[in-house]
This record gives sequence, C-alpha cells and structure tokens, in this order.
Amino acid sequence: MRYPLHLKKVIDVLRRLPGVGNKSAERFAFQLLTWKVEHLEEIADLLKNIPIKLKHCSECGGLVGEEACPLCIPTRQDQGILCLVASPRDIFAIEETREYKGLYHVLGGLLSPLEGFGPEKLNLAKLKERMKSLLIKEVVIALDSTLEGDATSLYLKRELEEFAIPISRLAFGLPIGSSLDYVDGGTLARALSARWKF
Amino acid sequence: MRYPLHLKKVIDVLRRLPGVGNKSAERFAFQLLTWKVEHLEEIADLLKNIPIKLKHCSECGGLVGEEACPLCIPTRQDQGILCLVASPRDIFAIEETREYKGLYHVLGGLLSPLEGFGPEKLNLAKLKERMKSLLIKEVVIALDSTLEGDATSLYLKRELEEFAIPISRLAFGLPIGSSLDYVDGGTLARALSARWKF
Repeated sequence: MRYPLHLKKVIDVLRRLPGVGNKSAERFAFQLLTWKVEHLEEIADLLKNIPIKLKHCSECGGLVGEEACPLCIPTRQDQGILCLVASPRDIFAIEETREYKGLYHVLGGLLSPLEGFGPEKLNLAKLKERMKSLLIKEVVIALDSTLEGDATSLYLKRELEEFAIPISRLAFGLPIGSSLDYVDGGTLARALSARWKF
Repeated sequence: MRYPLHLKKVIDVLRRLPGVGNKSAERFAFQLLTWKVEHLEEIADLLKNIPIKLKHCSECGGLVGEEACPLCIPTRQDQGILCLVASPRDIFAIEETREYKGLYHVLGGLLSPLEGFGPEKLNLAKLKERMKSLLIKEVVIALDSTLEGDATSLYLKRELEEFAIPISRLAFGLPIGSSLDYVDGGTLARALSARWKF
C-alpha cells in the first residue's frame, strides 16, 4: 500500500534536511500528523517568514534578524582583527567560546571543484575592500580542517599576501576530552608535530 | 551572541520532532536558511495542509488521503481476520510485508499509566461493534514487544474473550539477519523457549 499523496510529499520535503534519510523523514512526517492545527500553522508561518525575518549583514555576511548586525558595530573591541569563516553559523560557534573579540567575514563556502564552488564565489573583492576600509592588521582563518578547508586557506593566504599582515589558522590537534584510542592517525600526527612545551 | 529571534523560534519548533535535539534542530534551521523562497513556501503549505489533506478512516482509523480507505473496501481478501495495531503507521509496515490480507483496526496507542493512556482511550466499543458487523473470525494483535504492548495485548485478550475466536500475537524471537552476539538476553530467552522444529 502506498502512502497517501500528501504524506508522500511531506516525507519528500523533509528528506531534504541534512542527514535525514527516508526512515527519519517518515518518522517526522507521522509525528507531524499528530500535531495540532495551531502548531502546524505556527511552523508553516515560521518557515515561510525565514527569508523576510532573517537577512545577511551586507558588511560581514553574518546572520541578522530585524536589528542592526551586532558584530559590525564600531564599539566592538579588536577592530583590527578579521576572522574569515565559511558560513554564518560558524560565527555563532566562535562567539560562544568568548575567546575572540574581533570582526568577521563570511566567505559563503569552501573551494570545492567537485561541487562547482570556485574562487569567484568567495567574493574576494568585498573582502579586500573591507580589509582596506577597516584597516585590518591581522587575519584569522577559521575554516574546517578538511581538504576543502586547507585548499581555501592556502588560496586566501596567497590572495592576501599583498596586505603584508599576520595571517593565522586555527590550531589542529587532539579535541579536548578525547582519548588517544579514539583519535585518528592524521590528527595524532598533527598533534605530535605541533606539540607544545609543557 | 544570541541567535536572531526568528531563528530561535524555528529551532524551537524543529526540536519538537521525534529524536531531534538542540544540535540537529540547529543544523536543520541553518539548512533551511539556504533554501529558496519557493521551497520554504512549498514546505509551509504542505505542513499547513496536513489536517485538510490527511484524514483518519472513520472505520479502521487508518490514514487516508482524499480517496476512500483502500483497506476497508469489501473486495479486500480475508475479510474475516482483523489486525489490531497501535498507530496508522503500523498498517503501512504490515502492508509492506505482503503477508497479511485481512482488515485493520487502529487502537490509537498502547496502555501506559505513566502517560495517562488508559483503557478508555482504546475505544473498545468501536472495536467490538466492528467485530460484530464484519463477522470477524480471527484477531491478530500486532503490538510492540514492550511492557506497554504486553499490557495492552493482555487487556485486549481478556476483553475479546466474549467472541470466543482465535486471538494471536506477533512472534517474538531473533530479528532476521541478526548475530547472536548483538541480541539481548530477553530476546534470546524468548527465541529459545519458542524454538521451532527444524
């Protein structure tokens, strides 16, 4: 027996969420069937209003609600440091650490020839323009420790050489709280070669 | 830095989905931010229309779209057998096996004093009425092999004694394709005591 058409459509659309396969989408859909009409209308309105209520800051590219971007205000400390991230989400993760007080710039992705994400999509023009106008004195590259993150970091390093300022990347090594048994060889090798005086 | 209010609301509503915690809800929400307006409107409409497009069959309680319930039509084989399930979803799982050709009846849940689901919610009146009018000659109880499933099955068995017809439950034992190493003791004990002549 096939699912009713509307249920099939709901399952298909839920399957577009990251990491959601057929089974999870079905579970979500059958759960939604038990929700009250008000809740369904609430979630429908929230989803529909995402493009209206959530915007990207025209300066840093971060996510903003209806207020001004809290990360681009002139009172922000460490105005001279610029942190490059791949997506707006990364900004929240870094802000959560409370270890960084500088400015941000969202690249919008990582170089990936397979996914058709080339250097032109990084929008370097805007980055360089901001670096000049904000008088940036240091750049922190906060990208994934993946092949794509490495490639993008290298590319950025070369492109930003003209500014002749310090450029750093996030440290690689053991995640905090991890047991050596569960750490992969690549990480362990990096952690060994970058060992620190104790 | 806090998430913009609208994003927070989207995350909160996604967290109501089964098995979705904070991290997954955040991942879903940030993914939704990248969806096109049309896709967001599509999903919003689908969700809003769930109560309109998907109904419960007034006979068996199964899920139906805009057509008549395909499981309650008189041409269905094995009209004399009635399968009791907890939720409409279970019907799809059983139909998928193609092992059963009889009728269904959805109980709407399993007895659970902790969740306030008592015998009155099983709606036995409707079940007995159907058993009489459909001249049911056999009942298959297809409920979970959990405490709640056991309690509900026992309760149903007692309540349906008046009909003096065969009542069966799904078999318990090793799931197909499982290795003994990974099977829990309870299942193994059941599989042993219910072993079959080979």
